[in-house]
Amino acid sequence: MAKSNLPLDADRLWSDIMALADLTDPVRPYTRRSFTALFLEGRASLAQKFADAGLTTRIDTAGNLIGRIEGRKPDLGVIAVGSHSDTVPSGGRFDGIAGVAAGLEVARALRDSGTLLDHTLEVIDFLAEEPSEYGLSCVGSRGMTGSLDGKMLDLVEPGNEKLRDALRRVGGDPDLLDQARRRDIRAFLELHIEQGIVLESQSLDIGVVTSIVGIRRIEIVFEGEADHAGTTPLHLRHDALVAAANAIIIVRRVAEELDREGSDYFVATVGILAVEPSASNIVPGRCRLIIDARTTNPALTTRFVAAVDRESEAAATAARVRRSAFTTLSDGPPVACDPDLQTSLREAARELGLAQTDLPSGAGHDAAFMSRICRSAMVFVPCRSGKSHTPEEWADRDAVAAGAAVILQAVKTLDRSLQQA
Amino acid sequence: MAKSNLPLDADRLWSDIMALADLTDPVRPYTRRSFTALFLEGRASLAQKFADAGLTTRIDTAGNLIGRIEGRKPDLGVIAVGSHSDTVPSGGRFDGIAGVAAGLEVARALRDSGTLLDHTLEVIDFLAEEPSEYGLSCVGSRGMTGSLDGKMLDLVEPGNEKLRDALRRVGGDPDLLDQARRRDIRAFLELHIEQGIVLESQSLDIGVVTSIVGIRRIEIVFEGEADHAGTTPLHLRHDALVAAANAIIIVRRVAEELDREGSDYFVATVGILAVEPSASNIVPGRCRLIIDARTTNPALTTRFVAAVDRESEAAATAARVRRSAFTTLSDGPPVACDPDLQTSLREAARELGLAQTDLPSGAGHDAAFMSRICRSAMVFVPCRSGKSHTPEEWADRDAVAAGAAVILQAVKTLDRSLQQA
Repeated sequence: MAKSNLPLDADRLWSDIMALADLTDPVRPYTRRSFTALFLEGRASLAQKFADAGLTTRIDTAGNLIGRIEGRKPDLGVIAVGSHSDTVPSGGRFDGIAGVAAGLEVARALRDSGTLLDHTLEVIDFLAEEPSEYGLSCVGSRGMTGSLDGKMLDLVEPGNEKLRDALRRVGGDPDLLDQARRRDIRAFLELHIEQGIVLESQSLDIGVVTSIVGIRRIEIVFEGEADHAGTTPLHLRHDALVAAANAIIIVRRVAEELDREGSDYFVATVGILAVEPSASNIVPGRCRLIIDARTTNPALTTRFVAAVDRESEAAATAARVRRSAFTTLSDGPPVACDPDLQTSLREAARELGLAQTDLPSGAGHDAAFMSRICRSAMVFVPCRSGKSHTPEEWADRDAVAAGAAVILQAVKTLDRSLQQA
Repeated sequence: MAKSNLPLDADRLWSDIMALADLTDPVRPYTRRSFTALFLEGRASLAQKFADAGLTTRIDTAGNLIGRIEGRKPDLGVIAVGSHSDTVPSGGRFDGIAGVAAGLEVARALRDSGTLLDHTLEVIDFLAEEPSEYGLSCVGSRGMTGSLDGKMLDLVEPGNEKLRDALRRVGGDPDLLDQARRRDIRAFLELHIEQGIVLESQSLDIGVVTSIVGIRRIEIVFEGEADHAGTTPLHLRHDALVAAANAIIIVRRVAEELDREGSDYFVATVGILAVEPSASNIVPGRCRLIIDARTTNPALTTRFVAAVDRESEAAATAARVRRSAFTTLSDGPPVACDPDLQTSLREAARELGLAQTDLPSGAGHDAAFMSRICRSAMVFVPCRSGKSHTPEEWADRDAVAAGAAVILQAVKTLDRSLQQA
């Protein structure tokens, strides 16, 4: 089947994505950070489109926006499609949003063709998939899968608001998280841009994701003394930034050593480093940094953390500062996508005449958390030069439509096959 | 003379300092950053006290708050006393403020004793002595000495406001800076806490400052690519933070090498490091850091800058990022204090029965800029454990009063001796 002749409305899907992209911080496009006024504006426009498509719309207690069409046999449970509408700072127009819009388009295409599923269909916009100001990612899918605990809810952003209070602000309820925990979802499908160059370099339409990397996030805090930068001799300093600089170099070196070892994927990044008090004439008294480590093999993460723990403690001692925190903020293990769902996605792509391959995901996704409560799988569509989390992020109209069509086709197949499982 | 029997009101001086300390950002005492609403509130209360003491009060076009008592022979020119009322973030209650309050107390003590000087007396609160959000320190004393140029006025803070616009906000006029440039000041005296441990460790009351270190500030910017931290293999990254971390370690090592060489004082600090976009799952695309290097020997700074320039460029290359800026933000040479003013201060301390020593200043001060237009000198008073630029900063009531009494006595002496010079 030619991509221009797909069983859904590619232009309608595209205009949804572009409309959401317009709702951005004007100073640094494309930014719609979770929990902000802009984010809530984006959600309001999504909720309106969900309602226009005939979906019953609500926010669950974990802050997820959910649109729902009751199936002909509601006891069968739910097939869910979705992703997230928040972005990183200075992010792109597709990461997350394309998956939510694809879910909406699937629902509309079914309605337009007069198809009512036996299963109930849900379209989900998960809350705060990207790392939020509270230091936690996948807030909504954690909540939906019983993976959002009290310690996480007590995380604070730089302005000192707790995540639990932010959750309340966006329509959730941290005291009733059990209500968000789902036991009725049978399958979850997520469309996402690849964020890599495999599909583009091989001129492929569709990537069926086989597994999603595990992500561990670690916070390190070094505490020294905020002395005067003019009157404090070097040998009497307790400079937290000198320790932090060494830790950054340690993280990179250890990661390179592990990545070089063999076939397993391993990357680690320090993306956040905050210096206090941050004045040019004061020796840094406190530094906080966040490490993001990812792999398809959890044993590598264990060895990485042990080495960084040992060496960063030594760096603190050498700089005469105290390492006051070495804390695991989150730890998601690698996740294999459901084999039966993968098969359905492959068959759908084949039926639609799309060129496809299997591939792992180096990025985390809500689908990884969803695998804790149901069969879960993902479709990747190509993006230009593998770029994401940047304003240059780009996916073609037809590429996104092809991915959505694969999801639509798989949903129809699963509506039958899940009844026989 | 016992410190309890000084020719001024130690309690009144103390209560001025404590009253200003109360005007602080409540979340992080003691913070009253230049150009903020709190800063202007502090200035309004100072201006009221200046007026209550009989001083004619104005803001000059460089944003300095000036109180003035016309002398009996105005043609002789001005003797000025002062310091600054702004603080670093999370600073202390004495740095700067003690010197402004001492100037005010000198004026009141003269009035109380019915003494009218031949010279005009001015009490000055210089604008933004501490490094401001615009990356520049000593804004007011630069302005008063013709050292504030158009390039500096174009510096911007993170919110993109230019220094020239900020100057206008606080009552100055960047287009009429020539009016702030003074040619009528004959002597400037500044009281300041030592910010070191020499006086305390030797149980001394007074330090007569012999010279003030030169300070060079350099900005380095590294530009890489803000790639996805999960999907970008290590060997394909352009991580600006890895380059910046190496630069921080280079700065420390080169500074230690120069300091170890001999008798000259040399320190260098990276106190500010900004990471963009600053998200845990994005490879840092841009890092900006500020180096503060200080010495009594400018030749060491020249060698320091050459080494850091060469090695930070190599660090950029190694991390596959571009070093897009290596810029001198400011460069103040070391300054010797005026020998005659030093003599007056020593004699004043001796007459008052105070224990004193000579010492250099590792910190920069408005007095260094003032030396460009007039005789300039400083009095240090002891502070606890040498701590400054931190909430623990502390000086005793009697220690500050003793320093103010030395200034008062020296002003009286200079009012005569400068007429014979």
